[in-house]
Amino acid sequence: MASFQRHVFICVNERGAEDPRGCCQARGGVEVAAAFKQSLYARGLKRIVRPNKAGCLDQCALGVSVVVYPDGVWYGGVTVEDVEQIVEEHIVGGRPVARLVVPPDALTGRSPEPGQLS
Amino acid sequence: MASFQRHVFICVNERGAEDPRGCCQARGGVEVAAAFKQSLYARGLKRIVRPNKAGCLDQCALGVSVVVYPDGVWYGGVTVEDVEQIVEEHIVGGRPVARLVVPPDALTGRSPEPGQLS
Repeated sequence: MASFQRHVFICVNERGAEDPRGCCQARGGVEVAAAFKQSLYARGLKRIVRPNKAGCLDQCALGVSVVVYPDGVWYGGVTVEDVEQIVEEHIVGGRPVARLVVPPDALTGRSPEPGQLS
Repeated sequence: MASFQRHVFICVNERGAEDPRGCCQARGGVEVAAAFKQSLYARGLKRIVRPNKAGCLDQCALGVSVVVYPDGVWYGGVTVEDVEQIVEEHIVGGRPVARLVVPPDALTGRSPEPGQLS
């Protein structure tokens, strides 16, 4: 067998209704994950591209959050209606969907200090 | 801000006790995820390297399964006792822990047919 060619992680994390960031589950994360699975399997891409539910991806304010590896491309505000375009243009075609891409400087990650990582 | 430098997905999926493959949750996936979080945060790597709980990574027989992106390195049979070595040698040091790495031909992924992916 082999590694997956691409691995798509969809946040389905649930937070309390009082959290000001909101959460991906309330915005439809489970439905978005199901739509990826349906689209990929329908194209015969099962086990070639893996759709994967994920716990909190730490981009709560941007949900539904999706990250595609090994590309490292992040999407925000993804709805069920966006899934087919992401699969067609990015997963199959190799061109990320610019209107949904979250630029690195809008993500919550940090750069390492010198010497923290080799 | 920035993208995460590395993103570590730990399978915490639960399957019924009758499933012959077993599952990562029964083998300690939640505890392994907690150990990654503790180790990374203790090193000041919060939001530099993200530990992430994941749904089924489709390597049930190899659990606890862990995949590190963007490297695309897969680990199998990971225990709490292995986490510090993975963080020290791979996450910080850049050298995957060979004794725990699952080779691509032992994974469940498939290669695409010509024309399926560009």
